[in-house]
Amino acid sequence: MLERLLIPDIRELIAERDFATLGEVLNQWLPADLAALLANLPDDEQMQMFVLLEPAPRAKAFAHFSLEVQRRLLDALPQPDAAELLNRLAPDDRTALFEELPKPLAARLLELLSPEERRVTEELLHYSRDSIGRLMTPDYVAIGKDWSIQQMLDHVRTHGRDSETLNVVYVVGEDGTLVDDLRIREVLLAPLDNHVADLVDGIVVALRASDQRREAVDVFRKYDRTALPVIDAHGILVGIVTIDDVIDVAEQLATRELQRFGGVEALDEPYVRTPLLGMVRKRASWLVFLFLGELLTATAMGYFEREIQKAVVLALFVPLIISSGGNSGSPAATLLIRALALGELKLSDWPWVLRREMASGLLLGLVLGSIGFLRISLWSLFTDLYGEHWLLIAWTVSLALVGVVLWGALSGAILPFALKRLGFDPATSSAPFVATLVDVTGLVIYFSVALVVLRGTLL
Amino acid sequence: MLERLLIPDIRELIAERDFATLGEVLNQWLPADLAALLANLPDDEQMQMFVLLEPAPRAKAFAHFSLEVQRRLLDALPQPDAAELLNRLAPDDRTALFEELPKPLAARLLELLSPEERRVTEELLHYSRDSIGRLMTPDYVAIGKDWSIQQMLDHVRTHGRDSETLNVVYVVGEDGTLVDDLRIREVLLAPLDNHVADLVDGIVVALRASDQRREAVDVFRKYDRTALPVIDAHGILVGIVTIDDVIDVAEQLATRELQRFGGVEALDEPYVRTPLLGMVRKRASWLVFLFLGELLTATAMGYFEREIQKAVVLALFVPLIISSGGNSGSPAATLLIRALALGELKLSDWPWVLRREMASGLLLGLVLGSIGFLRISLWSLFTDLYGEHWLLIAWTVSLALVGVVLWGALSGAILPFALKRLGFDPATSSAPFVATLVDVTGLVIYFSVALVVLRGTLL
Repeated sequence: MLERLLIPDIRELIAERDFATLGEVLNQWLPADLAALLANLPDDEQMQMFVLLEPAPRAKAFAHFSLEVQRRLLDALPQPDAAELLNRLAPDDRTALFEELPKPLAARLLELLSPEERRVTEELLHYSRDSIGRLMTPDYVAIGKDWSIQQMLDHVRTHGRDSETLNVVYVVGEDGTLVDDLRIREVLLAPLDNHVADLVDGIVVALRASDQRREAVDVFRKYDRTALPVIDAHGILVGIVTIDDVIDVAEQLATRELQRFGGVEALDEPYVRTPLLGMVRKRASWLVFLFLGELLTATAMGYFEREIQKAVVLALFVPLIISSGGNSGSPAATLLIRALALGELKLSDWPWVLRREMASGLLLGLVLGSIGFLRISLWSLFTDLYGEHWLLIAWTVSLALVGVVLWGALSGAILPFALKRLGFDPATSSAPFVATLVDVTGLVIYFSVALVVLRGTLL
Repeated sequence: MLERLLIPDIRELIAERDFATLGEVLNQWLPADLAALLANLPDDEQMQMFVLLEPAPRAKAFAHFSLEVQRRLLDALPQPDAAELLNRLAPDDRTALFEELPKPLAARLLELLSPEERRVTEELLHYSRDSIGRLMTPDYVAIGKDWSIQQMLDHVRTHGRDSETLNVVYVVGEDGTLVDDLRIREVLLAPLDNHVADLVDGIVVALRASDQRREAVDVFRKYDRTALPVIDAHGILVGIVTIDDVIDVAEQLATRELQRFGGVEALDEPYVRTPLLGMVRKRASWLVFLFLGELLTATAMGYFEREIQKAVVLALFVPLIISSGGNSGSPAATLLIRALALGELKLSDWPWVLRREMASGLLLGLVLGSIGFLRISLWSLFTDLYGEHWLLIAWTVSLALVGVVLWGALSGAILPFALKRLGFDPATSSAPFVATLVDVTGLVIYFSVALVVLRGTLL
């Protein structure tokens, strides 16, 4: 990485206390690079560098830091500098910061904002936490329908500086209702004496401020836009959402999905920055829940204790059987969680999925069953590990494998649908959850098969 | 969904064979909506609607279809229409389509392209499949450094129509080297008599055509851009990549990561469109591999058969113990796979991770161990399921749980690092893979603890 290579040079400048050169160099960097460089420095040097930045690059780099670094820098800045910084932040970045701060601190920092910025921030904080309103910025260029293209370009030139994007401008009616969004490409391609009205086609894709953030991800994915307007319940344009923020949301949602699936409550913070005890707590809750479920395996095994006593050989295959169920269920769950998340499947598709997984589960079960049969038969040619009834044991294990693998695929496939139907996140059907479910039932299948096949011989 | 609600109306128009009205309605829709509508229609009606579209909306909607639908529509179109459609497709969308087609068909379709479009397509297909070159389009606006802003805007108005984006224009030297990229906002905010040179700051973030696609995702995420220039090894500007394509790549990579983790080879196609046998084959390979691993549990259990014979009670807890190892390892693996994928952790961080997971694993193990101890003790107050030595059994199970949970967390955490170090995808340390690994070793831990604790009493 560029930043890491440059650190020795920067360090040298720090050591020489050549802050003039340092400031000159740093102020020319791209905000994202600045943030990456500073994130790699020890706290005190980080602060030394940060104060060398001019207000504009400082605010831009600040938006790239993690919350933890943001808090530390804000704390350490003199109050006037902190005030300037906060006033310069883009409204959506500021809302995200205030959201995560303890209430009293947020209230104190809110006081530092100019009346205008404070009003904006309070309005945005009014939307619920996971709503599109929280991703919004009110900094956009709004234009009238009866303007000429030339008028509009002049307006952009004088009023566009604070807009979060100039890739799209928004045509609004006199009451503030959204009429259309014009991509700047349409404007740039139009003759200068045309009017805005000539470009307006009335087809506009808009988000609703009160909708869930996930909705924004889906709409952006579908329409290939870089910014989308946000309207309230009355169709009034209240802000815009830009794609960079939506990408961050998409990434967070993907992380959550993977973590849920892996059997850990979503951390919502990077692994490296989650405190040890906080992480243990988040992992313990699921682990304990699953453990209580797994205790049922001890109950199930206890129920078959007499059979195990009579035929200890049955116990040898217990881990093999139950793990095969989990290994069959986990991929099924993955495939269906993802298909549901991407909208490839709807709730009502469950009968189709059930039939399909029945076919795959059966085929996969037959494959494993055959391998199991072969393995027991082969071993029995050379050892007497499985006793005189090895052929019956082989049949028991193979049939149980078919049943358990089929059952695993079915449970793994249907659980995401059931959870979604009940209003839970389908990704809660985590790999460990499916495995636990199939472990207990797998034991019952195995010993039931054994009772039938081995009746009169071993049992 | 809008599209689904509208289908009855559309059907009615089809039934009445009112193709004039239908064509009028459909040609005004947004391409993404058109594609969504058509995707929901039966094949024959889909084709009927598709031919009603004018060439421009037809090509735009076409780009939104899945490969399967694209092939069917191309096959059914008369050759001149197919040629027009292919010539109108954006070069990057066309490359993606040709990539997936059987070689002979691709060669035949290539013949339909105009010489210019054919040259472009052949050039793009020259880049390797997972490279940034494949995401590129050569349709961008290039400008000279000595132009005035006014000149440049005039150039955009006359030459910009085919450009994939006008949000960014590219300043190139006489030899085609990339000098700078100018976001259109900088241009729009500049006075008209300024020159391009006044805006050029020489700080430009560029991708390399031969780099991996994943690289593009990381760079876009870091710099919050909507388009990035792509250069070759000599710094020559060869194309641009737009964010919509990068979002698709990010989504594919996330799907692959989740699928690998869930223990299934990446499908690379939506679940609903993967043929049953193809899916079974992809799932079977991992499942068989894991099964062969799990066969070792039968070997391990066989090794302890004498102990089980003496103390059948030990067998009752086998599923509980081994599943706890897997349930502890799977979340650890998830967290670290994701942290590695997002670049929060580097390979060299493994000792820190190891220490951290040792602490969490120990804490989590103590929690489960205590619950296990309590459960066995409580049950023994009311039943004699666990015999006279229940206290020793309780100790055995609890100690084994601490060991297995700790071992699970360590294996789950280190495996992604080990795989990455060896050049594999860390997500290969799937939930089932970790579980299998921990199952076999968990058994050894359990029976070893039992041999120590129960020596002289039960064993």
